[in-house]
Parts: sequence; C-alpha cells; structure tokens
Amino acid sequence: MASFKYHIFVCTNTRPPGHPRGCCDPDSRGALRERFSSEVKRRELRAIVRANACGCLDQCEHGPTVVVYPDGVWYGKVELTDVNEIVESHIVAGQPVERLRLPESCVNAKSCPHKPRPSPQAGPAPNVSRGVSG
Amino acid sequence: MASFKYHIFVCTNTRPPGHPRGCCDPDSRGALRERFSSEVKRRELRAIVRANACGCLDQCEHGPTVVVYPDGVWYGKVELTDVNEIVESHIVAGQPVERLRLPESCVNAKSCPHKPRPSPQAGPAPNVSRGVSG
Repeated sequence: MASFKYHIFVCTNTRPPGHPRGCCDPDSRGALRERFSSEVKRRELRAIVRANACGCLDQCEHGPTVVVYPDGVWYGKVELTDVNEIVESHIVAGQPVERLRLPESCVNAKSCPHKPRPSPQAGPAPNVSRGVSG
Repeated sequence: MASFKYHIFVCTNTRPPGHPRGCCDPDSRGALRERFSSEVKRRELRAIVRANACGCLDQCEHGPTVVVYPDGVWYGKVELTDVNEIVESHIVAGQPVERLRLPESCVNAKSCPHKPRPSPQAGPAPNVSRGVSG
C-alpha cells in the first residue's frame, strides 16, 4: 500500500435553484460521488484508488465536474451513467474518456464557450454548499 | 489560464469527540482550508492554484491531512501556523516541506507507527462529516 494510484475528486457543491453558474450537485444527494465510490469498491480497487467528495471546484458551468489526479484530467457534464466508463477506461486501462474531457481552454477560464463573461451588473454569487466550500 | 498548477485538497471531515481515528476538522470550522485559501489569495496565486475543501481523505490518524496535486505530496498534522510555509516553499518555490510530509509507508496504510491495527472487537466508525464524506 502507498499513495493512491488515482485520486478522483467529485464536486458536491450545491447552489440555489436557478443560480446563473449552476452547480455540480443540485439536489445535495452526493449521488455521483457515491456511484464512483461504489464502482471503485465493486472492482476491488480501494487499495489504490479513492473517490473523494470535494467542495466547489470552481468549474460550475461545466458541472457536474470531476478531476482525476495525478493526471490532472478534468471531466465535465458527468452523469451517473458515465461513471462505469470513466472507471473502466481511465482508472483501469489508463485511457481518459475523451468525449467527457474538459478542454484545457475551459478549465479555470474566465470565459469559454460554456461560460459567458458575467454581466458587470451582477453581484457576487451566493454559495449554499453543505458546509464545504472552496 | 488553464488547469491549476497546484491543487491543494484540505480534509474538512469531522467525527465525534473521542473517536478512535480522530479527524481533520474536529470543530467543523474549516479553518485550515480557509487559511490556505486566504494565503493563496493574498499571494495572488488564484489563477494557478486552488485550495479546495474535501471530504474524508481516509488518513485520519495523521490529520489534519492535506494533499497537493499533481505532485501527490501528502502532509499530516498540519496546523494553521504551517500554511504559510507550505505555500511559500512548496507552491511558490516547488520544494515540499519535508518536516510535514507523510512517509509513503504511512499513506493509505492498513497500519503504521501512527495507526495501530484496529481491535477486532471494534465496530465500524461513524462519520459525522458535514454532508461531505468519502
């Protein structure tokens, strides 16, 4: 045993319905993280892989967002039905799932095709994460 | 802008007082994550570094625990007064803080000098994280 071969971080941040940025876990159920965790367990990978909940990854417009380290591969718009493919292809076979990857130009970008520049009139966006922010 | 150069994950998991495994955020205040976040902001590193809260990293006996990716460097027993040094040395200068690093043999280990094997009589440990587990 040693450091994890792969560490999957699944954003579980929740914002109010209708928030302009959207959020990764609108119903606060953490279902996506649970699915990753159960898939890792089912495949008996827990000694080398961890699926972790995390606070806001700040890629909200692309959510639900997942980042896999140490690769630094970001996925966006991840659905429950994508989990098996990500684990099978990326975690087991070492091949990231290209169709779900966020382009490098979208990650941590002030604006991108999915994230229009905010209106100068808009105030700061409240965050109602369940106690885990940032 | 692009993927973060460094992504700092700070465990904010809370367990009940006296829990045998301990936990990383006993008073549920998230103060350690806040300190990392404010230090990153103060140094104007937010475009390339993110300090994220996360659920249980499962290295509880070494907590408060922090992991820095993509390096995969784990820190244990991190105190508020250590944050400046970690940011200065590791994040700015690229030199991990050796005195705080968890040895590879301690990370994800069933037992280590800091983590005695659990008693076979002990039941499963409850987790009272503020909604973010795993």
